[in-house]
Amino acid sequence: MAISRRTFMAAGAATLASATVMSTETNSPNAMSGQVVHNVYFWLKKPESLEDRDLLIAGLKTLSAIPAIKTLQIGLPANTEKRDVVDNSFNVFELMYFDSVEAQNEYQVHPLHTAFVENYGHLWERVVVHDSVLV
Amino acid sequence: MAISRRTFMAAGAATLASATVMSTETNSPNAMSGQVVHNVYFWLKKPESLEDRDLLIAGLKTLSAIPAIKTLQIGLPANTEKRDVVDNSFNVFELMYFDSVEAQNEYQVHPLHTAFVENYGHLWERVVVHDSVLV
Repeated sequence: MAISRRTFMAAGAATLASATVMSTETNSPNAMSGQVVHNVYFWLKKPESLEDRDLLIAGLKTLSAIPAIKTLQIGLPANTEKRDVVDNSFNVFELMYFDSVEAQNEYQVHPLHTAFVENYGHLWERVVVHDSVLV
Repeated sequence: MAISRRTFMAAGAATLASATVMSTETNSPNAMSGQVVHNVYFWLKKPESLEDRDLLIAGLKTLSAIPAIKTLQIGLPANTEKRDVVDNSFNVFELMYFDSVEAQNEYQVHPLHTAFVENYGHLWERVVVHDSVLV
């Protein structure tokens, strides 16, 4: 490998430093480790409808009242460079952090979440979810 | 809709409160707005190889020395409930925050990133990238 041990160690230290930026709860460098990142991509039935897009965003905001969610972020596809591996065809993106897999499972059955699916589910054609545990 | 205006407003306030947790730079409730979330999912050529998985994770950590990256997080598929919409078939997950689309584009051509692709690219079979701008 072209990357020396020194470079690798410096990079590792930078990772830890940046991870601490994400949490005000503790100064532990591994503060994010074990957290669940819940990524959801929505493709709308009417992708050209800004009204539907904004309605979905409003719906997603109602979820933030669910206690299990540590952080909720909502996004739109970014105009990054077109490359073969990039798929920015989705219309709305949602990212949540949870303390554990159990907390994410609790969220799934929370009344505000089931109400969200009931009230806004007609807007989307397709949903893809990727769940990760931070190392 | 079953969700009252009061519930919606409370939910909105909670979103803003949680967003501030993510940034130590400013107390502005919209501190994350405009940031680019760069999500990358890797499927390994040898998904059963923990050695390859850990090597890829070590490689990803070298990227954190790139100044354009505000935050780097690395994850593994979470053992969340199996549902039709959930695809946790990837082997390694990487999440980066950038200040702008331009910063993400700069990252793509940074020597440490091109070295990463050169040195670790043989490990993966497939990569999917989703880029979002936070609202």
